[in-house]
Amino acid sequence: MKKHPLGKLDQRHLWHPFTQMRDWLKGKPLVIERGKGALLWDVRGREYIDANSSIWTNLHGHNHPKINAAIRGQLGRVAHTSALGLANEPASLLGRELVRLANPRAGVTQQQPRLAKVFYSDNGSTAVEVALKLAYEFARRTGRARKPRFLSLDGAYHGDTVGAVSAGHIDLFHKAYSGMLFKTDKVMSPYCYRCPFNKAKPERGDARDTRKCHFECVDKVEQQFATRKKRGSNYAALLVEPGMQGPAGMIAQPKGWLGRVAQIAQGHGTQLIADEVMTGFGRAACRHFASHDEGVQPDFLCLAKGLSGGYLPMAATLTTQEVFDAFLGDYSELKTFFHGHSYTGNQLGSAASLASIGLLKTAASRRKKLAANLHTEAKRLWSLSQVGDIRQAGCVLAVELVRDWRTREPFKLAEQAGIRVCDGLAKRGVLTRPVGNVIVIMPPFCTTQQQVKKIFSALYDSIEESLNKP
Amino acid sequence: MKKHPLGKLDQRHLWHPFTQMRDWLKGKPLVIERGKGALLWDVRGREYIDANSSIWTNLHGHNHPKINAAIRGQLGRVAHTSALGLANEPASLLGRELVRLANPRAGVTQQQPRLAKVFYSDNGSTAVEVALKLAYEFARRTGRARKPRFLSLDGAYHGDTVGAVSAGHIDLFHKAYSGMLFKTDKVMSPYCYRCPFNKAKPERGDARDTRKCHFECVDKVEQQFATRKKRGSNYAALLVEPGMQGPAGMIAQPKGWLGRVAQIAQGHGTQLIADEVMTGFGRAACRHFASHDEGVQPDFLCLAKGLSGGYLPMAATLTTQEVFDAFLGDYSELKTFFHGHSYTGNQLGSAASLASIGLLKTAASRRKKLAANLHTEAKRLWSLSQVGDIRQAGCVLAVELVRDWRTREPFKLAEQAGIRVCDGLAKRGVLTRPVGNVIVIMPPFCTTQQQVKKIFSALYDSIEESLNKP
Repeated sequence: MKKHPLGKLDQRHLWHPFTQMRDWLKGKPLVIERGKGALLWDVRGREYIDANSSIWTNLHGHNHPKINAAIRGQLGRVAHTSALGLANEPASLLGRELVRLANPRAGVTQQQPRLAKVFYSDNGSTAVEVALKLAYEFARRTGRARKPRFLSLDGAYHGDTVGAVSAGHIDLFHKAYSGMLFKTDKVMSPYCYRCPFNKAKPERGDARDTRKCHFECVDKVEQQFATRKKRGSNYAALLVEPGMQGPAGMIAQPKGWLGRVAQIAQGHGTQLIADEVMTGFGRAACRHFASHDEGVQPDFLCLAKGLSGGYLPMAATLTTQEVFDAFLGDYSELKTFFHGHSYTGNQLGSAASLASIGLLKTAASRRKKLAANLHTEAKRLWSLSQVGDIRQAGCVLAVELVRDWRTREPFKLAEQAGIRVCDGLAKRGVLTRPVGNVIVIMPPFCTTQQQVKKIFSALYDSIEESLNKP
Repeated sequence: MKKHPLGKLDQRHLWHPFTQMRDWLKGKPLVIERGKGALLWDVRGREYIDANSSIWTNLHGHNHPKINAAIRGQLGRVAHTSALGLANEPASLLGRELVRLANPRAGVTQQQPRLAKVFYSDNGSTAVEVALKLAYEFARRTGRARKPRFLSLDGAYHGDTVGAVSAGHIDLFHKAYSGMLFKTDKVMSPYCYRCPFNKAKPERGDARDTRKCHFECVDKVEQQFATRKKRGSNYAALLVEPGMQGPAGMIAQPKGWLGRVAQIAQGHGTQLIADEVMTGFGRAACRHFASHDEGVQPDFLCLAKGLSGGYLPMAATLTTQEVFDAFLGDYSELKTFFHGHSYTGNQLGSAASLASIGLLKTAASRRKKLAANLHTEAKRLWSLSQVGDIRQAGCVLAVELVRDWRTREPFKLAEQAGIRVCDGLAKRGVLTRPVGNVIVIMPPFCTTQQQVKKIFSALYDSIEESLNKP
């Protein structure tokens, strides 16, 4: 089949994110034209299941009548005005909804919610940068640290701008830019499947369920704080991806880990920054946020991706009254938070976000069903020798591919095991993107049981076909 | 008048960018409800001229039928799919249009355009971060520098994420975060009105026209490169805001400055990063980009704000085939540019951008008229003793307020001269936002002569009223 003219245009002019463009230029781009629910169609009319929700963004499906109507309605009034000096209707209403969602126990009107203030931006990176800059200044102004330092997890990913990269610990992404980064510390992450403290032999089940350990990973966090204290200092903030670390390899945390770690950090007077860009809005949690599943209320909550339901770039950083108050003062004291992006509080994005949040209520039973279907359909994968671990958090399921489950030996980078399996999935009408050797299945909440069956049937076949080749 | 319920919601929940929130909480928020052309209306039905194009973003007016139709049309197909592994129609078409616009001399199909490749992101900060990271790696990979260093202008502003802040030199915004920033060098910017080398006495005219100097500011750039060379090193890139530096104080560059400086940088094998986030798409230029007015073709072109016509967050970084090629290789060589945001190449933003660019052709005569009207109507301001300098670049006009034009003595920060004048403008139905003591007039291209008259009449009255108070 000849290349589509749009595919040619793409290859001539565009540089794709996180993509080795030499490989991209060799192929025939798949050009998406339209979508409906969990389905996408390309310009050739071929149908696909959007099994990673368009890079973890879409919640309720494509072309949703309510989100479309909200965008259309707002478009008829005004698409965008500035948040510098002006308020607008959808951003104000969205602020209230976000504070409600983020403080499920507090009645917003009766009681002061802990996460009281909303600062908008455009993507996960900027949501994290806002939290970092606020936490940094908060630590300085409250005398907690002169030169504040941050702690984050091994394999942490918090975005691609220099501040967000500084807080990250994936060498593959971050090492090249070390000369541009500020120094942060890292601590062990609870990767049960490959944990040196986990004494369990390989089994056919989620490594978190079969683990034999004493939460040594939590001790490591405690030790890190103790070391810092010995040096007469403290951390300004601890950053975590609650519930599940994404680009680290979809590392789902064992129950109880986050609660313990949050207690350590907050007990030391360290701010907790919860990066729920991927996990939020019920994606990787029972409740709306993975922090709340562990009874944890962070000091900063960073949101993006699913915020707008997967329709438009929109992000928010929620924080406490205490942090907000540290930036109040006379104009000439210069305590102002000098940060902002032009489309902060964009009306179209806010309208889409309001509509998406409005759909969360009715999505509760769908999410439950989807999570159950993912769990059930994934079971047959255990019969494949290249499936090492299957870990699920809410509506996110990850399959770690290995050369043999008995040895846990990983595939080499050059083998591109994840990429090959996903290429095989695409041929079978299922779109997703691997994280190294981990296959990510994270379809929209509206995905039907039949569609889930199709995803896993395709995945089974693709693993067999792609990884049994000589 | 009582506070509007939406204003109350805003004050309860939102944290506004670049805003001293103590002042914001004292006031009654102006809540924007709808717009049409250059006009905005608040929830009380009061009418305003959008005299700063909603923080420098809107090009063709609000609620434009063609941009609205483009967004609606795309919404009916699909709002967003990922650029990680997939192409889509509007992003591909937009890539072609951006390359065409950015290379006015090259027929895109016949001849290889210099700015050949487009990397999408969401805002000006990320557009600059992409350029910084690419230039950094390019310098390392081509052996131009082991630990690459950047040069930018005094008063430079390139955004608020840590990398963009590192390249900036406004103490007010940037100093607090010095512990998070990587080191960059700064060099004199051509601020004719306050230039120590400008021997002209204060006059009633744009200081660039009356200047008496020998382009000593250009010599400073040359010296900076020479010093670097003496140390056996070179700059990876020079960052500039071509035509006019924005948050530095709307500092319009004298004719010939950019051409000379670009020649120095590119002559030294240093990449030129043109941050046309504010100036691009005909905003502050005769051509579509201020670089081209000076016959300069940069190695990186950063675009945002006006890209989508002021409707949706969307950004792009254009660069050369040479830079692109430095990131090609075998997958396992890890030469890939590991950077990306979830909404990269968002379909709705791309559709809006395509429509806005389509309107640029017919906007040419409007832009010319608007620039002429701004110039004509601003003249009467010279009769006010508090008007020190009036400088214009294309459709952007800036008025620098001083205590007395004969002494050029600036108002103190605590006097909030700019803020008071803009408050007076808002009372008169004209919305804009000051940069320190500089009033920014930058309405959409569709602003009529009558509306321009109204803006300057209000500005005249507001300066008289606000600054003559004891």
